Amino acid sequence: MSPDVAALPTPSAAAGIAQPLARYAAWRRAGDFLFFSGVIAVDPAAGRVVRGFDDIPADVATQFGRSGEFSSDVREGPILAQSWYVLDRIRRTAEAAGAAMAIVFKPTQFFRNLDHFPYYSRVRKLLFPGEPPASTVVEVCAMLPSDDVLIEVEATAYLPR
Amino acid sequence: MSPDVAALPTPSAAAGIAQPLARYAAWRRAGDFLFFSGVIAVDPAAGRVVRGFDDIPADVATQFGRSGEFSSDVREGPILAQSWYVLDRIRRTAEAAGAAMAIVFKPTQFFRNLDHFPYYSRVRKLLFPGEPPASTVVEVCAMLPSDDVLIEVEATAYLPR
Amino acid sequence: MSPDVAALPTPSAAAGIAQPLARYAAWRRAGDFLFFSGVIAVDPAAGRVVRGFDDIPADVATQFGRSGEFSSDVREGPILAQSWYVLDRIRRTAEAAGAAMAIVFKPTQFFRNLDHFPYYSRVRKLLFPGEPPASTVVEVCAMLPSDDVLIEVEATAYLPR
Amino acid sequence: MSPDVAALPTPSAAAGIAQPLARYAAWRRAGDFLFFSGVIAVDPAAGRVVRGFDDIPADVATQFGRSGEFSSDVREGPILAQSWYVLDRIRRTAEAAGAAMAIVFKPTQFFRNLDHFPYYSRVRKLLFPGEPPASTVVEVCAMLPSDDVLIEVEATAYLPR
Amino acid sequence: MSPDVAALPTPSAAAGIAQPLARYAAWRRAGDFLFFSGVIAVDPAAGRVVRGFDDIPADVATQFGRSGEFSSDVREGPILAQSWYVLDRIRRTAEAAGAAMAIVFKPTQFFRNLDHFPYYSRVRKLLFPGEPPASTVVEVCAMLPSDDVLIEVEATAYLPR
Amino acid sequence: MSPDVAALPTPSAAAGIAQPLARYAAWRRAGDFLFFSGVIAVDPAAGRVVRGFDDIPADVATQFGRSGEFSSDVREGPILAQSWYVLDRIRRTAEAAGAAMAIVFKPTQFFRNLDHFPYYSRVRKLLFPGEPPASTVVEVCAMLPSDDVLIEVEATAYLPR
Amino acid sequence: MSPDVAALPTPSAAAGIAQPLARYAAWRRAGDFLFFSGVIAVDPAAGRVVRGFDDIPADVATQFGRSGEFSSDVREGPILAQSWYVLDRIRRTAEAAGAAMAIVFKPTQFFRNLDHFPYYSRVRKLLFPGEPPASTVVEVCAMLPSDDVLIEVEATAYLPR
Amino acid sequence: MSPDVAALPTPSAAAGIAQPLARYAAWRRAGDFLFFSGVIAVDPAAGRVVRGFDDIPADVATQFGRSGEFSSDVREGPILAQSWYVLDRIRRTAEAAGAAMAIVFKPTQFFRNLDHFPYYSRVRKLLFPGEPPASTVVEVCAMLPSDDVLIEVEATAYLPR
Amino acid sequence: MSPDVAALPTPSAAAGIAQPLARYAAWRRAGDFLFFSGVIAVDPAAGRVVRGFDDIPADVATQFGRSGEFSSDVREGPILAQSWYVLDRIRRTAEAAGAAMAIVFKPTQFFRNLDHFPYYSRVRKLLFPGEPPASTVVEVCAMLPSDDVLIEVEATAYLPR
Amino acid sequence: MSPDVAALPTPSAAAGIAQPLARYAAWRRAGDFLFFSGVIAVDPAAGRVVRGFDDIPADVATQFGRSGEFSSDVREGPILAQSWYVLDRIRRTAEAAGAAMAIVFKPTQFFRNLDHFPYYSRVRKLLFPGEPPASTVVEVCAMLPSDDVLIEVEATAYLPR
Amino acid sequence: MSPDVAALPTPSAAAGIAQPLARYAAWRRAGDFLFFSGVIAVDPAAGRVVRGFDDIPADVATQFGRSGEFSSDVREGPILAQSWYVLDRIRRTAEAAGAAMAIVFKPTQFFRNLDHFPYYSRVRKLLFPGEPPASTVVEVCAMLPSDDVLIEVEATAYLPR
Amino acid sequence: MSPDVAALPTPSAAAGIAQPLARYAAWRRAGDFLFFSGVIAVDPAAGRVVRGFDDIPADVATQFGRSGEFSSDVREGPILAQSWYVLDRIRRTAEAAGAAMAIVFKPTQFFRNLDHFPYYSRVRKLLFPGEPPASTVVEVCAMLPSDDVLIEVEATAYLPR
Repeated sequence: MSPDVAALPTPSAAAGIAQPLARYAAWRRAGDFLFFSGVIAVDPAAGRVVRGFDDIPADVATQFGRSGEFSSDVREGPILAQSWYVLDRIRRTAEAAGAAMAIVFKPTQFFRNLDHFPYYSRVRKLLFPGEPPASTVVEVCAMLPSDDVLIEVEATAYLPR
Repeated sequence: MSPDVAALPTPSAAAGIAQPLARYAAWRRAGDFLFFSGVIAVDPAAGRVVRGFDDIPADVATQFGRSGEFSSDVREGPILAQSWYVLDRIRRTAEAAGAAMAIVFKPTQFFRNLDHFPYYSRVRKLLFPGEPPASTVVEVCAMLPSDDVLIEVEATAYLPR
Repeated sequence: MSPDVAALPTPSAAAGIAQPLARYAAWRRAGDFLFFSGVIAVDPAAGRVVRGFDDIPADVATQFGRSGEFSSDVREGPILAQSWYVLDRIRRTAEAAGAAMAIVFKPTQFFRNLDHFPYYSRVRKLLFPGEPPASTVVEVCAMLPSDDVLIEVEATAYLPR
Repeated sequence: MSPDVAALPTPSAAAGIAQPLARYAAWRRAGDFLFFSGVIAVDPAAGRVVRGFDDIPADVATQFGRSGEFSSDVREGPILAQSWYVLDRIRRTAEAAGAAMAIVFKPTQFFRNLDHFPYYSRVRKLLFPGEPPASTVVEVCAMLPSDDVLIEVEATAYLPR
Repeated sequence: MSPDVAALPTPSAAAGIAQPLARYAAWRRAGDFLFFSGVIAVDPAAGRVVRGFDDIPADVATQFGRSGEFSSDVREGPILAQSWYVLDRIRRTAEAAGAAMAIVFKPTQFFRNLDHFPYYSRVRKLLFPGEPPASTVVEVCAMLPSDDVLIEVEATAYLPR
Repeated sequence: MSPDVAALPTPSAAAGIAQPLARYAAWRRAGDFLFFSGVIAVDPAAGRVVRGFDDIPADVATQFGRSGEFSSDVREGPILAQSWYVLDRIRRTAEAAGAAMAIVFKPTQFFRNLDHFPYYSRVRKLLFPGEPPASTVVEVCAMLPSDDVLIEVEATAYLPR
Repeated sequence: MSPDVAALPTPSAAAGIAQPLARYAAWRRAGDFLFFSGVIAVDPAAGRVVRGFDDIPADVATQFGRSGEFSSDVREGPILAQSWYVLDRIRRTAEAAGAAMAIVFKPTQFFRNLDHFPYYSRVRKLLFPGEPPASTVVEVCAMLPSDDVLIEVEATAYLPR
Repeated sequence: MSPDVAALPTPSAAAGIAQPLARYAAWRRAGDFLFFSGVIAVDPAAGRVVRGFDDIPADVATQFGRSGEFSSDVREGPILAQSWYVLDRIRRTAEAAGAAMAIVFKPTQFFRNLDHFPYYSRVRKLLFPGEPPASTVVEVCAMLPSDDVLIEVEATAYLPR
Repeated sequence: MSPDVAALPTPSAAAGIAQPLARYAAWRRAGDFLFFSGVIAVDPAAGRVVRGFDDIPADVATQFGRSGEFSSDVREGPILAQSWYVLDRIRRTAEAAGAAMAIVFKPTQFFRNLDHFPYYSRVRKLLFPGEPPASTVVEVCAMLPSDDVLIEVEATAYLPR
Repeated sequence: MSPDVAALPTPSAAAGIAQPLARYAAWRRAGDFLFFSGVIAVDPAAGRVVRGFDDIPADVATQFGRSGEFSSDVREGPILAQSWYVLDRIRRTAEAAGAAMAIVFKPTQFFRNLDHFPYYSRVRKLLFPGEPPASTVVEVCAMLPSDDVLIEVEATAYLPR
Repeated sequence: MSPDVAALPTPSAAAGIAQPLARYAAWRRAGDFLFFSGVIAVDPAAGRVVRGFDDIPADVATQFGRSGEFSSDVREGPILAQSWYVLDRIRRTAEAAGAAMAIVFKPTQFFRNLDHFPYYSRVRKLLFPGEPPASTVVEVCAMLPSDDVLIEVEATAYLPR
Repeated sequence: MSPDVAALPTPSAAAGIAQPLARYAAWRRAGDFLFFSGVIAVDPAAGRVVRGFDDIPADVATQFGRSGEFSSDVREGPILAQSWYVLDRIRRTAEAAGAAMAIVFKPTQFFRNLDHFPYYSRVRKLLFPGEPPASTVVEVCAMLPSDDVLIEVEATAYLPR
């Protein structure tokens, strides 16, 4: 294996950063680039998918769209909570590498339902306050580990040594 | 953010190159590479999807397969016109960066229907006259902004400084 | 075109490595990276998709899960045989470049049915015995050339000159 | 027919209020109550369904959620524009009767897709700033005149003489 | 129970008026209003759904659209016959209350298939010759007692004491 | 707003009566009438839908059909428990207004599956022991907040001041 | 053929017992066991499937659940009537063999829709008043002779000579 | 294990009798009974499903319905050939046990499509020339090893020692 | 009823053996045979279906295929855990009768999805270490009590007195 | 109109020949040719579709395939009876023109389900005993007047004057 | 080619007659017959399908069923307008040949939805005022050029020289 | 039978001309006309459907569109090869009658998928180099003998004696 790969601490060494759900690395360094595995909203400790506002911190839920109306929150909560969870994990991983979200210049987003895009787009704007990244968005049939997953984000970052 | 990113003029500075439909960059430079966002056949001025030969220049339509038979053109026109539109925008963007289509070494193509591949393949051969690129092709469920979109092409280019 | 691209021998120069099914390159070099086209389990000589244990070497079939029970092998054989075939072609291509599987740090896997993932995962563990790669997995609608294709793997490798 | 019915001016006598699409009354008075026919977002002059932000006044579009991002607006625009259009027509009709939105105490809402409810709910809160009405919401299969109609609102108002 | 309710003779006391199919009242009076249960085209004596022109009086069938062409009557008959049957029962019930169809100011119509609306609309015009009522029309999934039911009409009437 | 509306205590002032899940009133008074919003079987405290006999009091479950056979109760429990829950909430609300179930003269029932009607009908007979109400029943596609909801009942009551 | 088989009178010798619809025996004896063919609710004389309460004796219909409400009976009648018909035929056949229902120790039940199980289960309890049998229940796609058949029961009985 | 079971030669000892496709016995003796595993039309040597008249002996094909018309034989051949193949294997197995088809008193038949029943019934009459067996027939969703299998027959035989 | 039936202790007298979910016996003896009801993976105490590795003992989960990879275990866990649970209950029941698994000579297996067969087959081989049983396998539409049930096994055993 | 057309007696003048179901001619002569309208199996007197063997003469039913087994006849009867009915009407019409079936040289056959072709083909061979006609067969979606119609035959005949 | 074919002026020589949409003739003469290609309602000048009353002359729309009610016209308009358009083009073509509609003795009608037949039948009666033609009607899956086409009429005419 | 019919040699007398797949004639003469049965791409010798370029002569495949790219040829090959095969058989049959393709003045084309039309249209132009024929095109559900058939062409020719 190339000596340039994976100089950063492994995921298990830091809380809250992207965790793989099978035998793969959450991210790998290659040259000046960091390549993230596809990230989904699964709590690695509890081993279950984020299903709504109740599965993320209350202040975050409020900030990212909880209306307090049951019928609305049941509909909007899953995608808003997953959008935040996924991007926040990417952010923490970038920070664990001694950098910030701005190094992530190219996310690829996979959706189960593109009607969810406007919700995700609002969250992304808040988490990418600087120069917007290049981006690809497609709707696929399914993602791991189960059909509760509504969005998966794969990302590439640039962090020269 | 890394100082190597996005040294090229921004998309809004040049006509006809790939335009983002939401808050993201049409492309980003990272080191010696250019990463394009997924490109689809949407006219940024008119804000509508290319739907057939009538939405592209007449000479291009003729060159890329318009038969003049109504029933055939209704069937083949949408994918042929979108294929040309998408690859032409990538080509123009490469030229705006002072290079040519040959810097694009890896397109990833997303289709709504893989029966469209032979049409796209003919267009790509004309627009990639040199060494063929590496390529990935999959059929997905849907793309932004709407179901009229038949193809999306994401690309990576190599342009050392 | 950039002078750094494609210094390796072309696919046609070596037996058993990844072969394109249309006019595209099986892989391209760009800087210190190798970018593979999406690889599927199609025998380029016979021009047909790998459909089960009978289409791969007998010892490999035994090693990767052939049970000898007809009903089980009919069900598990297609994905196990394709998983091996695809990863083995990537391995051979890496070896043709004078390196080994360890240079492949980021595969992207497209499935027709994510219930196939556990089978693939077992094969990948055997073919990636070292540090696990970063990875993305999604289920898409279809792949080329036909619906018999159950898995496609696109990969990126790092091989500094 | 009862002498208490329909003392208000007929719909054709006032611009912008709820218009019937077939041979029925936009509303009828019976005793102290006004009963509205189901209202949908069809422009009676142009004879076509409201399909997005472009079909309502620009300032209203901005106030009720137009983001300016093409991909988001294509997804959210139809339900937001129809929600506003329908409730605004009810409001104007109430005003034509010399009253205000507050007389409407019971809307019944029919949706094509209940995932649209949070969008509608935000619009309704703005148009019912006072005491909230009693309400029923169900998802039905279709509405007149065509499948472009995403929401229909039937309402009852109380306006003692 | 309120003393104002149900001063009219009960349905069982009069032939041909709306009959409930389960334990509910065909209509109830409350104050100055009559509220009809949803009415469908079921012959209470035979206990079966009206299925075409043969299930209504011959002169009515002729008046309401029987063409005498077998293929046309098989297609149009069910909805035309049910439309007449349902509205005629409402009319008879109004007459049993000593009034006329004109007291019915607000029917709500549920369809199995909105392509049936033009047929129903023609029938309604004949049975509501005076001032048109307020009206709501939606397509639902099914109605009682079985899938042969194509239309159900619920109505409200105003009949001050 | 009309001074006759909503003289009764608001829902939040009394336990167990119909609670709105979004910004709307559980019921509104207009003249001599009470208009209920559509009521579904959601426990407002726990914020979750009633899913079976375990979600209602044990003695009620026994009274309304729990057989003690697991396979039967899994099939019949959801609709029986929701039917009781919804009608019981309407009853309590009527009682909070100083009246009884008999003031409810017109429920409109929305089902997800009309095969559930016989179960509901048995429950309704027990909760409407007096004169049966007028009634409308249709099968719709979905209801708020989620697909677990099998029945929604909207009701009108008469309670002269 | 074994001399122990079919010592009982053949089905054609006794009225009301299980009748085959094709060239097979309604039951066969083998050793101490009786094996019944799958029994469905088809009247062998009329050659048609039992479709509801009207196709079984009136007192039986009343005993096994006829409510007298048209809408309920249309929904519950088919499965209740078929359940009784099938088990009653098995009972009569056992009696024709000089024994009783108690010799039937293992029915296998095939359903078109498992939501029908609770109805069937109630009927079975009445017809198997003694020790409950061993039992298997599955939902299959279809049964002979036509889609009106909702349940088929195959049974094994023990009747030592 | 019971000493009475499986006194007959095992399937591998005789050509042409029912062969298991996984680790199970083709049949087992228990007391005076033989219990056959479900038999399908798979050639154990070639390891493939019987797909039509070409996969059975020519004289058998002619006897059991080959018309010589291509379009008819393509439609009828698969079920006719499988029906013969399955019943013939059961017959051979009975003969290997020193008995004849007549010992088989109870086949259970699983179909993919009950429209195939008349074809099967004709074949069965020829292969069960004596007293007809008791029989159960249901349509299931699928059978092993693959969707080409149209019929599976499980059987019980009586062969006292 | 025959005196030979059910000499063994009833299921309620022993922990862990097959438990009926409705009013039927878990098994019945008839002559020298034991007939089991269809067994599914429902924990009779908790009254819920086994859904994965977490619902069976940890050492069993490890022995029967838990990989420790979240994505694989989510996919394979349900069928592996249910397969073990069902066969283990049959084994315990045989032991409660003073015998062993070897007396079970004929299981009939019903699946929701035959792609699960290879998983089940591996489990069965471990629990039937001796002579393999005769076997039938079909895919049906559904089983009791709910759609979470992936497999049901009905079995016959031979245990002469 | 051409004087050569329709020299034959009109359909209404002769019993049993092809009858139109709407305002069209059963056949028309043009020059030396007779052109038949599409013929379906509808009894013009009873105004209903032939549904099985009971709707055709008993001796014909026996000759054309009635087996006397209820389950087989329910499946095969509809297409066999309709095939006979349609071709017999064409034959009678030819005879009414003073000729025989041999003048019909080109039938076009429309099916609802091509699995019915072998049944039809057997009937046609009996009714076209001489030189076989030219023929076209396709499966369409539906035919008039209703979905019970399984086959429609349009024919052209040659009968020089 | 035969000298008898196509003596009439070609379609391009006359306005308003049937126009081919691909490289085929609108009609051909052969001997005494004219054979029309399948005609659909596409305006050859505008190159688009007739979609409703607005696409045909206003007086024609009124004559052939425009009600002036928006909801009805949206439903009935497409088939009524296409029916008129197609038959009118056939009529004009016949007139261009110096004859009249009466020469058309055999139309074959293809529908997308046979519920449209009664509408078409009314139009045809007006355009074929004389002797009715022989006729065939089937519902097919689709027609050229697109799914907006609801009806296609192919016709044969007799016009001796 | 008319003496004018079938003066040409029968199909079995000449190689390569249209062959019937059941008991019907490949074509029939009537007066001055030849009527062809529907022709499909089935090799009468091999008894199998043409599935792609490998089933037609290599030079023909090249002439009619084989690109040499595996993925394109898999998609386009089946319809291109069948289109050629069918029209070539019609051409050969015309030549066997001593004439040429130009006598075929009216083909009727049935497709499985109208997206195939542009491919067919290109082939037809090459095989009908002279005056274009009249033509009808519809998409049907299926054709004989199996679902591999993508196109069937029925034709009429004029060849005066």
